[in-house]
Amino acid sequence: LTSRLPAVGTTIFTTMSALAQQHGAVNLGQGFPDFDGDPRLMQAVKDALDAGHNQYPPMAGVPALREAIAAKIAALHGRAYDPGLEITVTAGATQAILTAILALVHPGDEVIVLDPCYDSYEPSILLAGARAVHVALTPGRFRPDFAAIAAAITPRTRAILINTPHNPTGTVWTEAEMQQLAALLAPTDILVLADEVYEHMVYDGATHQSIARHPALAERGVLISSFGKTYHVTGWKVGFVAAPAALMAEFRKVHQFNVFTVNTPMQHALAAFMTDAAPYLELPAFYQGKRDRFRAGLAGTGLALLPCEGTYFQCVSYAGLAPEIAALPEVAFCEWLTREVGVAAIPLSAFYPDGRDQQFARLCFAKRDETLERALERLRQHL
Amino acid sequence: LTSRLPAVGTTIFTTMSALAQQHGAVNLGQGFPDFDGDPRLMQAVKDALDAGHNQYPPMAGVPALREAIAAKIAALHGRAYDPGLEITVTAGATQAILTAILALVHPGDEVIVLDPCYDSYEPSILLAGARAVHVALTPGRFRPDFAAIAAAITPRTRAILINTPHNPTGTVWTEAEMQQLAALLAPTDILVLADEVYEHMVYDGATHQSIARHPALAERGVLISSFGKTYHVTGWKVGFVAAPAALMAEFRKVHQFNVFTVNTPMQHALAAFMTDAAPYLELPAFYQGKRDRFRAGLAGTGLALLPCEGTYFQCVSYAGLAPEIAALPEVAFCEWLTREVGVAAIPLSAFYPDGRDQQFARLCFAKRDETLERALERLRQHL
Ligand SMILES: CSCCC(=O)C(=O)O
Ligand SMILES: CSCCC(=O)C(=O)O
Repeated sequence: LTSRLPAVGTTIFTTMSALAQQHGAVNLGQGFPDFDGDPRLMQAVKDALDAGHNQYPPMAGVPALREAIAAKIAALHGRAYDPGLEITVTAGATQAILTAILALVHPGDEVIVLDPCYDSYEPSILLAGARAVHVALTPGRFRPDFAAIAAAITPRTRAILINTPHNPTGTVWTEAEMQQLAALLAPTDILVLADEVYEHMVYDGATHQSIARHPALAERGVLISSFGKTYHVTGWKVGFVAAPAALMAEFRKVHQFNVFTVNTPMQHALAAFMTDAAPYLELPAFYQGKRDRFRAGLAGTGLALLPCEGTYFQCVSYAGLAPEIAALPEVAFCEWLTREVGVAAIPLSAFYPDGRDQQFARLCFAKRDETLERALERLRQHL
Repeated sequence: LTSRLPAVGTTIFTTMSALAQQHGAVNLGQGFPDFDGDPRLMQAVKDALDAGHNQYPPMAGVPALREAIAAKIAALHGRAYDPGLEITVTAGATQAILTAILALVHPGDEVIVLDPCYDSYEPSILLAGARAVHVALTPGRFRPDFAAIAAAITPRTRAILINTPHNPTGTVWTEAEMQQLAALLAPTDILVLADEVYEHMVYDGATHQSIARHPALAERGVLISSFGKTYHVTGWKVGFVAAPAALMAEFRKVHQFNVFTVNTPMQHALAAFMTDAAPYLELPAFYQGKRDRFRAGLAGTGLALLPCEGTYFQCVSYAGLAPEIAALPEVAFCEWLTREVGVAAIPLSAFYPDGRDQQFARLCFAKRDETLERALERLRQHL
């Protein structure tokens, strides 16, 4: 049996969640909240079940949900996507990313990814028969390095995959950076695949720079986001894609033969909830509070804090811990932390193709304050 | 923009359902019931929501659901799949088919498909960079033609995709046919991808021939099925795959980067419901009754009936209708039937790569008896 993905094992998020469970660790690894979605959203699912919304919805998604998505993007970013032709509901953002790549990238093409990056990007590119061209974010600050991106562009470059707010480092692209990207791509026909799943987790008054705010990027762009992250229901596996009609037509050709369509009751529930409420407007303050309390608590642990402008992840360096701990590779450190300290984390090396070690780990603060406090106590006690 | 799938438009099921809605037609096109799933199953979803099962489940699926699937296959077919390593829950059977192909088929490989076949098969093969080799089922009787399959095998043949009970023709493979396939493949390393989504819709006392009953096929096989079809909840988009551990390891490598995992509340609900109840045992009698009443009713319409041994589809020939109607190509006939008669159907040409016309249409009888009666009345009146 020759593998299509010989370098790939089980994704780190699964491995670390299983290890956390095995050792009764506080799971700050995999990115999901330990609190529930809005009770009104839960009720809306029950209403959808009672209304008999249990058979195939339209392939591109329930119309009311697509309209709500388009209205939200228009309100927040000023771009009007046509819900009929330019919005598709997906089984989460990961499915959207693979589908977009399979639909738009041809065998032999190159796709630029910015390291560190989410672990599904490169395998998705490989499955399309294409090649991932890795460009590092600037060392230490993790910002886009436009000179390096420009140098990586070849006639085979089909797309660049960007992610802001950025998982795992928590950086948020600025308006100027988006404009620099637009200027760089202007003379090319390179597509932009924009992973914006943490769109509502942006702190200190900054504005999320969706490609929808930047016409030069939106016209060549596929905007990908997630209801799971925004509404605290990661297990529902519902996301969406917005793109100009010509790109969306290709996306849907593949989407219909991948998942065909997405869970009907959840789509109806999200549509009903979105017309009632805009709780995502409260998310920046909600998560900024958690970030600030978590950072303050970490201060006493010996872990050094990296900046966190967005997402619900806080990266730390363990270089300042006892030498035998600081000497551990990141994967071993995270395993040790899970097993001995009782706090699960994600090694940043999992986001690099070469698995490089920098003594960094990622902690998820999308948790109840008691959970974060419990983790902090264990860290303070053991480190 | 060069398309990855230039020959592909919107899937016929979507097109015909939209046309049906537009014209207020009775929709016997796309395959889904117009009645709801068991109220206990709906309650189980509500219970799962109330229990807070809304975050990521394990990547391969909720353990209790995988155990229930394994137990069911063991009880029905006598093969024990390991729920830990050999069962994965998918976002429907279509996602399972694409994922299996992406995981197991390499660029340049060939995959044998038996025409007519479901419209996702060939695009899925193309997306893997492979080639679909079309072998016709025997003309008129739609049975596997082993001489033709043998003749189609080359050193590049990686897999054969089989589908029993068969959509659209309703044929059900016999035990002897499964044994013939096993014998044919024995000297090769060709994999078997078995689409068994209509596993519980088999009539006249016949037994569904799962690959799980045939060790020589199961050991090289990927068994794919659907909860949507079995539990009357096609919109939930939950299915599963069973395969030997080595094949499943490759499947999961791709699955984790496609959908990552599947809707948590629905998985918990299905797990709870499956341990309580085995309503699929009643499905053959339930659907056989519908088939028999529907066939009896069609007798008076001028449409000629093809055999129906399984699935919830009845194929008909319209060759005996008025010459100007009989002369229509299948797509035009189905559009006419939807628009003028008020009954939506699916042209069989959609299941052939060359779109060949045989004056056949497919009607779905997974409908309330009143719905079928309403369709029959319209057919009797207009044909
Ligand atoms: C799909 S599991 C991982 C969730 C996530 O986005 C993360 O932890 O980075
Ligand atoms: C995924 S839509 C089509 C449903 C189906 O299996 C069919 O109608 O053949």
